[in-house]
Amino acid sequence: MSSADTAGNAAAVDYGSPCFAAWREAAAPHWQAYTHHPFVAGLADGSLPRRAFLFYLQQDYLFLRHFARAWALAVVKADTLAGMRQAAAVVQALLGEEMQLHVAICEREGISAAALEGAEEAVENLAYTRYVMDAGLAGDMLDLLAALAPCVLGYGEIGARLSAGEAPPGRDAAYSEWIDTYGSSGYQALCVEVAGVLEDALARHLGAEPQGSPRWRALAGRFATATRLEVGFWDMGLRGRP
Amino acid sequence: MSSADTAGNAAAVDYGSPCFAAWREAAAPHWQAYTHHPFVAGLADGSLPRRAFLFYLQQDYLFLRHFARAWALAVVKADTLAGMRQAAAVVQALLGEEMQLHVAICEREGISAAALEGAEEAVENLAYTRYVMDAGLAGDMLDLLAALAPCVLGYGEIGARLSAGEAPPGRDAAYSEWIDTYGSSGYQALCVEVAGVLEDALARHLGAEPQGSPRWRALAGRFATATRLEVGFWDMGLRGRP
Amino acid sequence: MSSADTAGNAAAVDYGSPCFAAWREAAAPHWQAYTHHPFVAGLADGSLPRRAFLFYLQQDYLFLRHFARAWALAVVKADTLAGMRQAAAVVQALLGEEMQLHVAICEREGISAAALEGAEEAVENLAYTRYVMDAGLAGDMLDLLAALAPCVLGYGEIGARLSAGEAPPGRDAAYSEWIDTYGSSGYQALCVEVAGVLEDALARHLGAEPQGSPRWRALAGRFATATRLEVGFWDMGLRGRP
Amino acid sequence: MSSADTAGNAAAVDYGSPCFAAWREAAAPHWQAYTHHPFVAGLADGSLPRRAFLFYLQQDYLFLRHFARAWALAVVKADTLAGMRQAAAVVQALLGEEMQLHVAICEREGISAAALEGAEEAVENLAYTRYVMDAGLAGDMLDLLAALAPCVLGYGEIGARLSAGEAPPGRDAAYSEWIDTYGSSGYQALCVEVAGVLEDALARHLGAEPQGSPRWRALAGRFATATRLEVGFWDMGLRGRP
Repeated sequence: MSSADTAGNAAAVDYGSPCFAAWREAAAPHWQAYTHHPFVAGLADGSLPRRAFLFYLQQDYLFLRHFARAWALAVVKADTLAGMRQAAAVVQALLGEEMQLHVAICEREGISAAALEGAEEAVENLAYTRYVMDAGLAGDMLDLLAALAPCVLGYGEIGARLSAGEAPPGRDAAYSEWIDTYGSSGYQALCVEVAGVLEDALARHLGAEPQGSPRWRALAGRFATATRLEVGFWDMGLRGRP
Repeated sequence: MSSADTAGNAAAVDYGSPCFAAWREAAAPHWQAYTHHPFVAGLADGSLPRRAFLFYLQQDYLFLRHFARAWALAVVKADTLAGMRQAAAVVQALLGEEMQLHVAICEREGISAAALEGAEEAVENLAYTRYVMDAGLAGDMLDLLAALAPCVLGYGEIGARLSAGEAPPGRDAAYSEWIDTYGSSGYQALCVEVAGVLEDALARHLGAEPQGSPRWRALAGRFATATRLEVGFWDMGLRGRP
Repeated sequence: MSSADTAGNAAAVDYGSPCFAAWREAAAPHWQAYTHHPFVAGLADGSLPRRAFLFYLQQDYLFLRHFARAWALAVVKADTLAGMRQAAAVVQALLGEEMQLHVAICEREGISAAALEGAEEAVENLAYTRYVMDAGLAGDMLDLLAALAPCVLGYGEIGARLSAGEAPPGRDAAYSEWIDTYGSSGYQALCVEVAGVLEDALARHLGAEPQGSPRWRALAGRFATATRLEVGFWDMGLRGRP
Repeated sequence: MSSADTAGNAAAVDYGSPCFAAWREAAAPHWQAYTHHPFVAGLADGSLPRRAFLFYLQQDYLFLRHFARAWALAVVKADTLAGMRQAAAVVQALLGEEMQLHVAICEREGISAAALEGAEEAVENLAYTRYVMDAGLAGDMLDLLAALAPCVLGYGEIGARLSAGEAPPGRDAAYSEWIDTYGSSGYQALCVEVAGVLEDALARHLGAEPQGSPRWRALAGRFATATRLEVGFWDMGLRGRP
């Protein structure tokens, strides 16, 4: 798939989840603004100011912590053993590899792990992470998964598209590293796994035609809100300060 | 068991909720054991040992506190303003009138409010109340309501049946007071209100045919488990000690 | 800064809670930015654009709903019956009178109750309300109360200060109504009540010297974060759109 | 009771947690009834009816699932990254090895994994698991850890004591396997780890003298209640049916 195709329409992959594809379609303007944000374009062509990237990275480190909490809440709420195990595996991946990537890049840039820990959460960060947590407290596993999906799968989509492109000469090595991480086969496989968890939960709770369920609109709304909050997260990154 | 048997009296109304009626039918043996428990029969004919009644009353006082917490959790989880207001009204009723009834009866019997507060929760009490709380944490509003329904509506059914009967001569005044409370038009109206909350939530989440939803079985299972825990609660009462 | 300076007027009372006063002092720059925000100044001198006020009112309506959920979570988490009852009373006040005030003003301005319900939550609104909910899920009653306090008590402080001032000629009647609501003896009494809940919970959990507790700093941090989110809420109001 | 009496042997170590030792001492009668229960004695001398053991194993399989949920809730509630990682590791251990042990033993006895999944939870099982979950919802990390500790550390104490003893001739191999599991250096190391998590959390929340904190009594109460529920769990096992 060419990146022009991906951009211009909904031809992006669905990781095996038609429900994800339908939610993405229903939130198309937000999804476009998220996956083709100037921040993302700047990562790809290397024009993103370093300060913006580092600020984003620090905020994302704090984000991952709460995202791990949200996946732990999915363990609490899962109604199958398989679902518990899958969610627990994501918790481990987030607390392990993904946070280490941030620590490693930041350390090279002179930002210590302690500085990462002590940073103040920006309002966009608070909004997104706590919205996801509360989706889990207020609703059930589906509400939580609908709020979790845009981050996991959107990063997969962005990573796949950007890593398929040519790296411009002189692009910051850290930007390439970021792109490689989310474009990697490992991360893409995680997206397929999470999409499977999602489809499975939707089928078990809503039946064979989830889109006909009375809950569909509210779930699509949760997905759209989380996508909107992703846009805000990139805005915050570009701003480069709390 | 025929539906005539199920009724066995005028009390097996459904308070306007066919879903409640269906869950009750699916849990028929547990429901029968709950609503026709020897403890209940002893309240009606006056043969219940006073010690059992007082022990029950003390445990039920602690129960109501956690039941109020569970309805507060319903406020947290409700997805309509009307649902929030209805759940909040139940919280007020529980923390107000219903707990006062227990305090008043116990005080006459020489059990102080402080003694009520300090009593140790029996295992059956812990099981029931915490099961309901966790139904709310693990699932959504429907899971919580399915776990809350047997207590509210079962007491209504018992109260209606017993208050329709003749009071045997010499029956303990406190037993009659208990029967009058749950048989009162006020409590019966609360049952209709709660049944309405239940139907409304089921319709909004599962559609016009909730019994055909993939979630139906799990929800009926929650109702059955809570009903089973009501049987245990009466057993505990008869035992008369933790 | 002397306490006279902090106040800048007669309104910086502590409602009987030295802990609130200490948290406020520790978050002084945020608190000053919150209580003396241009939005607040515009309410007082009547210069606030009407559009900003109405947008704020719509967002605040959605805010109140989640704030009521947060106080319902306080009922779930309270470890005394008195605490449960106080929190339940706040839930009732929020779902009743306070939301009605918004509905009434908005209706006069041609914004229907349905429009209020259907409005999209701005990011600052999501951030604040969900942060409070998650404070309750992550921590205990103290964490939740520390996140709830800035709104309740800060509005009290603002209301007291503004209602003590002279109304400029031609000030929008709705602005005066807002000021009168939060400056009213009823609302001021609610502040004293909530401050009492706070002091009581702190004393019971942290002892006679809560400021010496290892938890003090984290709790003050929660208060400061919620105060910072109040500043964002006014910013959002001034912006007048999501 | 002297500590020699409490132990009755060399096993009553505190795993490096004086707070655990203090809670155990405060709950001594319950702790003694738990760790020296006839069920445990029957495991050691081989006199435990096989039916009781298998029934226990099936219930314990369901227990572990909710215990994993409770440790996932600890990930949600932990206020340090280290705490999150430790709790996540316990979740993995429970969902992995520990549940596999049960599956393997049961399979050899003709109880399929599906049968394990589908078994009905006994009231003692419901009481214990849901009490722990609600401790986490109602309180903070300390409340949750106090409710989690008796199971983890008590099984360690029992395992250490029983594995130090001589295996009587003819003892069921599955009983020896159970004893070896909890007496193993791996499990004993887990106990040290969890005791460390506990001490660390207590120190960070309550300071250097946790026993002087106003919360101490309530936390010891949570520990005692969970210990009491362990006794009920063994009772349930001996009974050999729901």
